[in-house]
Amino acid sequence: MAKAEENVYTLASLREHLIRQEDTIIYGLIERAKFPSNSNTYDDKYAQIPGFSGSLVEFVVKNAEDVQAKAGRYTNPKEHPFFPENLPPSNVPSYPFSQFLHPGPASININKSIWKMYFQDLLPLLATSGDDGNYAQTAAADLSLLQAISSRIHYGKFVAEVKFRDAPQDYEPLIRAKDREGVMKLLTFTDVEETVRKRVEKKATVFGQEVSLDSDNDGNGKRKFDPTVASRLYKNWMIPLTKEIEVEYLLRRLD
Amino acid sequence: MAKAEENVYTLASLREHLIRQEDTIIYGLIERAKFPSNSNTYDDKYAQIPGFSGSLVEFVVKNAEDVQAKAGRYTNPKEHPFFPENLPPSNVPSYPFSQFLHPGPASININKSIWKMYFQDLLPLLATSGDDGNYAQTAAADLSLLQAISSRIHYGKFVAEVKFRDAPQDYEPLIRAKDREGVMKLLTFTDVEETVRKRVEKKATVFGQEVSLDSDNDGNGKRKFDPTVASRLYKNWMIPLTKEIEVEYLLRRLD
Repeated sequence: MAKAEENVYTLASLREHLIRQEDTIIYGLIERAKFPSNSNTYDDKYAQIPGFSGSLVEFVVKNAEDVQAKAGRYTNPKEHPFFPENLPPSNVPSYPFSQFLHPGPASININKSIWKMYFQDLLPLLATSGDDGNYAQTAAADLSLLQAISSRIHYGKFVAEVKFRDAPQDYEPLIRAKDREGVMKLLTFTDVEETVRKRVEKKATVFGQEVSLDSDNDGNGKRKFDPTVASRLYKNWMIPLTKEIEVEYLLRRLD
Repeated sequence: MAKAEENVYTLASLREHLIRQEDTIIYGLIERAKFPSNSNTYDDKYAQIPGFSGSLVEFVVKNAEDVQAKAGRYTNPKEHPFFPENLPPSNVPSYPFSQFLHPGPASININKSIWKMYFQDLLPLLATSGDDGNYAQTAAADLSLLQAISSRIHYGKFVAEVKFRDAPQDYEPLIRAKDREGVMKLLTFTDVEETVRKRVEKKATVFGQEVSLDSDNDGNGKRKFDPTVASRLYKNWMIPLTKEIEVEYLLRRLD
C-alpha cells in the first residue's frame, strides 16, 4: 500500500500530505506553548551529564536520534537528523521505501538552519517567560516540533522533483545556466503561499481554542497560544526554507 | 511561579489541569492514528538490536526514559516511568517541586496496567491496519501518547490528596476499616464522569476535523480519527484507572 502510494507522487498527493503536516506542526506548537520558556533547557552550562557537553535540549535530541536511527527512522528518505554525525546504523530489516528523488540532491539537509530559526526566532514568540522545572518534558516537546518542522521543509525535495518531472523543458535551461533567481521565480506561486498562511492560522485558531460543553464559549475563551505565531512561522521561515530546499535540489537535479 | 501554584492545589486548580491534559491526549491520539498499525513495531522478534531483547516500542520507550531520567524528568512527582528498573539518576540540579503528596502512596505506579491497556485495548481501536515502514516514528507517537495517558491517570494521586484534605472526617473511618468499596463510592461522581466523557468526545471532534479555508466543509469532511475512540478511552479505561489510583492512594493515606 505505502509503496504504491509513494510511487505515484503528484502535486495533488504531495499537497494532501503537506496539509496534514500542518496539523502535526500546530499540535506541536500548542504542546510546546504548554511549558514556559524554561531557559535552563537551553543553557550549555546547566546540566552536568557525564560524557556529554552541551545543553539539555541537545542531549535529548541527539540521544533520541541515536535511538530512532537504530529503530530505522533515517532509512526513510523523508527523515533528516539534526545531528547526522556518528549516527548509529539501523537495526531493523530494510523497508522498500520509494527511491523517488534524484540521488545527488536527495542528501540535502538544512536542519542547521532550521535549528537556528527554531531557537532564535520561533521559541521567543511561542513560549511565555517562566520556569516550571520541567526541562526534560520541554526538550521532548522541542524534539517533536523540530522533527515536524524539518519533515515539512524537507518535503520540498519531493515537491521539486514532481515540479521538475512535470515541466523539465522549463527547468533544464535555468538549471544549466545556474540561474538561481529564475528557478526561484518559476516555483513561486504567491497566491498559494497566501492560502497556506491563511489556512494555517485558521487551523491554529480551531485547534488552539479551549473547547467546553457550553458551545457559546467555544472560540471566545482563552486560547492555548497565539494563532498568528503559526502563520508567522509559515510566512517568515517555513515557506522560505522550503523554497530554498527546492532551489538547491533543482540546481543539482541534472548532476 | 510554579512553586506557588503547586502549593495551592485545589479541586478547581486540578480540574483545570486535567481539562488541559485532555487536549494533549487527543493530539496524541490523532498523531498515532496518522500511522497504520505497523505491527513490526510491537514484534519482539523483528529488530535485532545488540544488547537489547524486546520489541522496537520497548526499545524506544526504555531508551527515551533513560535519557529523560538523566535530564531530570522523574524528579517531578507527577511523572512515572514505564520501565522504572535501573533508571539512571538525574544529572540536573534539583528543582523544588512541591511535595504535596503523602510520602508512602506517592510512589504508586500503575504503568504496567496502562501499558497493557494501551496495546491490548486502545491501539486496535485507533490504528487502521497496514504497514508503512515508519516503525521508529510510530513508536515515538506511542511514547508521547503513553506518557500523556500515564500523566493524566497518576494525577489521581493529587486529586485523592485534595479530596482527603477537604474531608478527612469522611475518609478516615473508611480507610481505617480498609473499606475499599466505601472509599470508591465516596469519590465517585457519575455526573462528573459523564461530563468528562462528553467533553472529550467533543474535543476529539473539533481537534480531529479537517479544517479548510472553505468554512462550509469544516466538520463535514474527512476526520483524522473516530472521536468515539477518545470517549471510550476515557469511559472504559482512563476514568476507572484514575479511580483505582485514587482508592489505592487513600487506603495508604494514614500509613
